Amino acid sequence: MSTHSPSILIVGAGAVGALFGSALARQGAQVSVVCRSDYEQVKRDGYRIRSSLLGDHVFRPNAVLRDVTENTSPPDYLILAVKILPGIDRAALIRPAVGPRTVIVLIENGIDIEEEIAQAFPQNELLSSVAFVGVGRTGPGEVHHQSLGSMVLGRYPSGITPAAQQLAALFEAGKIGCKLHERIVTVRWQKAVWNASFNPISIMGGVLDTTMMLRTPQDQAFIRRAMQEVCDIAAAAGHPLPAQVIDQLIASTLGMPAYKTSMAQDFESGRPLEIEAILGNAVRVGRKHEVAMPVLETVYALAKMIEGGKGAAAK
Amino acid sequence: MSTHSPSILIVGAGAVGALFGSALARQGAQVSVVCRSDYEQVKRDGYRIRSSLLGDHVFRPNAVLRDVTENTSPPDYLILAVKILPGIDRAALIRPAVGPRTVIVLIENGIDIEEEIAQAFPQNELLSSVAFVGVGRTGPGEVHHQSLGSMVLGRYPSGITPAAQQLAALFEAGKIGCKLHERIVTVRWQKAVWNASFNPISIMGGVLDTTMMLRTPQDQAFIRRAMQEVCDIAAAAGHPLPAQVIDQLIASTLGMPAYKTSMAQDFESGRPLEIEAILGNAVRVGRKHEVAMPVLETVYALAKMIEGGKGAAAK
Repeated sequence: MSTHSPSILIVGAGAVGALFGSALARQGAQVSVVCRSDYEQVKRDGYRIRSSLLGDHVFRPNAVLRDVTENTSPPDYLILAVKILPGIDRAALIRPAVGPRTVIVLIENGIDIEEEIAQAFPQNELLSSVAFVGVGRTGPGEVHHQSLGSMVLGRYPSGITPAAQQLAALFEAGKIGCKLHERIVTVRWQKAVWNASFNPISIMGGVLDTTMMLRTPQDQAFIRRAMQEVCDIAAAAGHPLPAQVIDQLIASTLGMPAYKTSMAQDFESGRPLEIEAILGNAVRVGRKHEVAMPVLETVYALAKMIEGGKGAAAK
Repeated sequence: MSTHSPSILIVGAGAVGALFGSALARQGAQVSVVCRSDYEQVKRDGYRIRSSLLGDHVFRPNAVLRDVTENTSPPDYLILAVKILPGIDRAALIRPAVGPRTVIVLIENGIDIEEEIAQAFPQNELLSSVAFVGVGRTGPGEVHHQSLGSMVLGRYPSGITPAAQQLAALFEAGKIGCKLHERIVTVRWQKAVWNASFNPISIMGGVLDTTMMLRTPQDQAFIRRAMQEVCDIAAAAGHPLPAQVIDQLIASTLGMPAYKTSMAQDFESGRPLEIEAILGNAVRVGRKHEVAMPVLETVYALAKMIEGGKGAAAK
């Protein structure tokens, strides 16, 4: 960890990575990105970011790389922001850029996603984070930041470190609210209460938005059952969540405009779905602890069926 | 019951009603139809039916009525073939045409759909049937009979009657295979094993055909769990089904070309869904008998959510 102007490499700089990278770069960090899909555009013009929080602006990374192997010296922080999909070896992906003192930072969705990285890099500090941000790609190199814009950060498996403090301070100065938390895995479970229920349910019926999923008292009772099962799994895994978490999530979701989950957006665009990271891993933890989860098991089977059936049909 | 050329009124003469009515008319029955949506076309030109089983032909009913009240004398048989949807009072619908000796015949999908009619017409003989036919409407007055074409018929709640025998003989002579069965409700449950699982699951993900629903061993295991729950409900309700029914249904479905269920077709066309008749009624029977049915309860909640959410969005 350097004390001034840390070097940061963002691997998988999609919408979230670009937005957060931009916030860090504005505070003087040396931010490079690995970006495959929009490489040419971003290399030439940078990211054009529309954001009411950060203002509309262009973010020109220090270096734009097509591949991690192009990185020349190990960064102080390597931020991993790729989607978590079966068959993608995230440890192998970042290994070429990880130096002995590189702090690895996960800004990714899902449950139980840290252990693979922790085991692959036992000597490196690992930070995990949960982001709350509504941001999407609207074109090549174009990012639209629609809502929210904050995160919770902590050491994996627990604790707070000077590196975490430095990074959080940079984010905060860059207007991305960043709370530190001693038990980041618990925070991850808390986010999963929303994610593991709304995301896979949103691809039922060919995309349901949050308004459709909470329309009637019966719908809300059903979503609550799904959420309660996530809470039960979290508790069984040693991460009991506050009793009011479900009420709060239902209320805050009802207070938002109709929202399409990330999985619904991926489904509509024919992109791969993070079913395993978001729901499958939670279900496996539940099975290990023999938690009764009839709703999640059924939704999981349906989500896999939908993913496979649609994928096969598209070929 | 008349012994020759019985008069038959088909209420709700969509694709199934038209096809079956045509088979009866060819055997000399006096077949009239109540048909609302394609009234003008059918009144003028009859039904144009494409069928490899019955041959391509035109079926001109004795009378084409827009409404049951237009019927002048009570028929020997009143065949009810409307979809079963919440808010539609089927007893009130047919009452104007039911005479003291009219035999009421249900050719409709679902579970627990007879009692409402039996209670409304306690003096009338009630026959219930389960149809196995792939037939659809391809345009105004146009019917395409694609596959199968048989039925099982019996008295409700049980038994076989002379009227059932006469009707079955007419169907058989008209090339619609019609088996008589002493326990038609058990047959209905047996069909529900397929219907209550494949139909609602087929509208997950924005329409899945049978191939998509049985693609992987995991998918098949999931469909089997749903089917087993229907079997468990049927058994609890006094209708134990043969042990091999699930194996047979899976095998026969795998042996068919990819097939879109009736509910999937309705969903794609934005028509009302028979969720209550096909799944909801089965679930309610299961609840009454305290059957564990985690898959069906979840699928039911999802199907209602999809129906409501999509319906609200369409407005």
